[in-house]
Amino acid sequence: MLQVNVELKERRYPILIGAGLLAKPESYAPLKKGDKVMIVSNPTIAPHYLATVEHTLTQLGCQVDSVLIPDGEKYKTLDSLNLIFTALLEKNHNRDSTLIALGGGVIGDVAGYAAASYQRGIRFIQIPTTLLAQVDSSVGGKTAVNHPLGKNMIGAFYQPVSVIIDTLTLATLPKREVSAGLAEVIKYGAIFDLPFFEWLEQHIDHLIALDQADLCYCIQRCCQLKADVVARDETEKGDRALLNFGHTFGHAIEAHLGYGNWLHGEAVAVGMLEAAALSEQFGDLNAQDVARLETLLAKANLPTISPDGMLPEAYLPYMWRDKKVLSGQLRLILLKKLGAAYVSAQASEAQVIAAISRFTQA
Amino acid sequence: MLQVNVELKERRYPILIGAGLLAKPESYAPLKKGDKVMIVSNPTIAPHYLATVEHTLTQLGCQVDSVLIPDGEKYKTLDSLNLIFTALLEKNHNRDSTLIALGGGVIGDVAGYAAASYQRGIRFIQIPTTLLAQVDSSVGGKTAVNHPLGKNMIGAFYQPVSVIIDTLTLATLPKREVSAGLAEVIKYGAIFDLPFFEWLEQHIDHLIALDQADLCYCIQRCCQLKADVVARDETEKGDRALLNFGHTFGHAIEAHLGYGNWLHGEAVAVGMLEAAALSEQFGDLNAQDVARLETLLAKANLPTISPDGMLPEAYLPYMWRDKKVLSGQLRLILLKKLGAAYVSAQASEAQVIAAISRFTQA
Ligand SMILES: NC(=O)c1ccc[n+]([C@@H]2O[C@H](COP(=O)([O-])OP(=O)(O)OC[C@H]3O[C@@H](n4cnc5c(N)ncnc54)[C@H](O)[C@@H]3O)[C@@H](O)[C@H]2O)c1
Ligand SMILES: NC(=O)c1ccc[n+]([C@@H]2O[C@H](COP(=O)([O-])OP(=O)(O)OC[C@H]3O[C@@H](n4cnc5c(N)ncnc54)[C@H](O)[C@@H]3O)[C@@H](O)[C@H]2O)c1
Ligand SMILES: [Zn+2]
Ligand SMILES: [Zn+2]
Repeated sequence: MLQVNVELKERRYPILIGAGLLAKPESYAPLKKGDKVMIVSNPTIAPHYLATVEHTLTQLGCQVDSVLIPDGEKYKTLDSLNLIFTALLEKNHNRDSTLIALGGGVIGDVAGYAAASYQRGIRFIQIPTTLLAQVDSSVGGKTAVNHPLGKNMIGAFYQPVSVIIDTLTLATLPKREVSAGLAEVIKYGAIFDLPFFEWLEQHIDHLIALDQADLCYCIQRCCQLKADVVARDETEKGDRALLNFGHTFGHAIEAHLGYGNWLHGEAVAVGMLEAAALSEQFGDLNAQDVARLETLLAKANLPTISPDGMLPEAYLPYMWRDKKVLSGQLRLILLKKLGAAYVSAQASEAQVIAAISRFTQA
Repeated sequence: MLQVNVELKERRYPILIGAGLLAKPESYAPLKKGDKVMIVSNPTIAPHYLATVEHTLTQLGCQVDSVLIPDGEKYKTLDSLNLIFTALLEKNHNRDSTLIALGGGVIGDVAGYAAASYQRGIRFIQIPTTLLAQVDSSVGGKTAVNHPLGKNMIGAFYQPVSVIIDTLTLATLPKREVSAGLAEVIKYGAIFDLPFFEWLEQHIDHLIALDQADLCYCIQRCCQLKADVVARDETEKGDRALLNFGHTFGHAIEAHLGYGNWLHGEAVAVGMLEAAALSEQFGDLNAQDVARLETLLAKANLPTISPDGMLPEAYLPYMWRDKKVLSGQLRLILLKKLGAAYVSAQASEAQVIAAISRFTQA
């Protein structure tokens, strides 16, 4: 079993990574005999893993309840949150109870916000079951639900007491979701860690084949990189912005197509290429760096070209909207070199269009 | 203008107290030219004070929006919360916006939780307009909404950047609400501060007559006492429990009658007498202490006897439910003497019944 510690001002908590952790009672520390637990999952994930978690916790002597919310981003709402509160109250859970999120990023975000809010905060454990959740959403304490007028607009910063990553859960995850998770994995290499990027170039096929040892190493590295940036910037005022590499472009793709048509990771893959092309224009990357990124993404079965019929100009309104949320400038995360990112407010619209055009169908 | 500072681990914030503060731009620091502000109020309070707040903030150069939620405890819900989120999103408020609660404890609790949750936390200012909110709910950072299965079950600990208490707002508050607030005022004297209790004995008539100087002093003293206990115990794990003096008995009265029939402060008044009688049984108070408390409450136009037809035995199921939330013992806040409270787990049911019986109609 591998472990990464997230070091926060107030306390530290562990991320445990291994194949088969869900069936081992010791994975669930600090839970112990007599503790009350509510597991939040959904009807897609529960049939595969809920019984194992329930069984292992019951063995440990915990009192275990569970509640399922409907599957899908469109159920990441205050209504689903309320389903969780109702279940907690109906089963008399109090301030000493623990909430467990068993699922992907949607379950993690909703359950995390429920844990932050129930009786003003109860103990929370993450069991992420998608690669994206394992390397990204379960680390860092961001929780949220959507509002009809905006994604992730309502939530809290709330840290779990532990994160349990069982790499065997990826066996049932649709391949397309695995690839989408790999986009975020590749992002970590590109923005923070050239040696890891190189390791990915060598091991990408193993990861797609779900080689357990390589998955564990890969997830550990990503969690470590994210934990480091979160420790430096818990409430997202500085450094953490670098994690948005490829995301401003990617969000434009997602919004243009309508959320859910391309997976988030797919849009981010193309977005990273566009940001890399801009970095090449600025003289920071060379053509070979961009080509390496493109090759790696393609090997991960990710798209490397803008959606059919989406013109470069179509990105701009979305990108400007993204920026307005932050300041008066079009702020983009760009690369100084492979493995090092920075925030830039230099790019003109013409430069952005030129970069996007390189990955647009004729 | 009087000021109390709340000293937290992370930062300090001021509570400003004075007659006429709402009309003075300097009350609203740290707000400044260009800031976006959303005021949350209700249709009862808005006609009296919203225009003044809007006008003063506009003078200061702020961009001011407002949203009203329906008046009443029964609207302290996730739905009202969502009304606030919708208003914030429709008016393009972002992470740099400030939410202002203009109203009593209900508005403060809902708006505070909205501020804690919108984009994972935006700046929050409290303008409490009931005496209860001025001396109690606006200080300490507890925010919440109700769930059909339980009061205040969903919320956050979230501190404002400032609290602005304009004592002139009490002019329009129903007298019965003023008295209910005085129950909490008297509570502070009883649990923490004998000299303040004695000051109240001398000035209670002035307070009821809304003498502005006496109100300011009184509110300052209460805020200071609450700020001290909050600074010691921000997330309510220890000392803050002492603020529940009279509340376990009081909650039984409120629940028995159905919430809203007696005001919270009215139930707490009788609850404090019952707790005091128990302290007399334990030999900590004498008969004269209990009589002083009774006289002071009566002068504040508060009830000093159990509701018509509520038998002492009727308290117990509610009191046991209250206790279960905390531990395996019937924990009560009792007095060692006037001005000093402690947590007791000693009282038997028979002793509790005997204490309640002293304030029950024959
Ligand atoms: N909190 C953060 O820091 C953060 C970061 C990134 C993304 N997110 C959020 O994460 C969400 C996306 O997460 P996601 O990509 O995990 O999507 P998801 O949670 O919707 O999961 C994708 C699909 O896979 C299914 N699934 C999950 N695990 C499975 C398994 N082991 N076997 C079979 N099916 C499985 C799910 O039921 C779902 O249908 C978004 O809402 C996004 O906003 C949050
Ligand atoms: N957060 C905390 O620490 C804390 C502490 C105690 C109580 N509370 C909460 O506070 C709430 C009770 O607060 P409350 O007693 O202020 O009740 P409230 O907010 O319902 O106000 C009482 C009534 O007075 C009206 N009103 C308010 N100010 C007025 C004014 N200046 N002029 C005329 N009318 C006015 C209101 O519209 C309402 O009808 C409860 O929900 C309780 O749970 C919270
Ligand atoms: Zn992402
Ligand atoms: Zn009270």
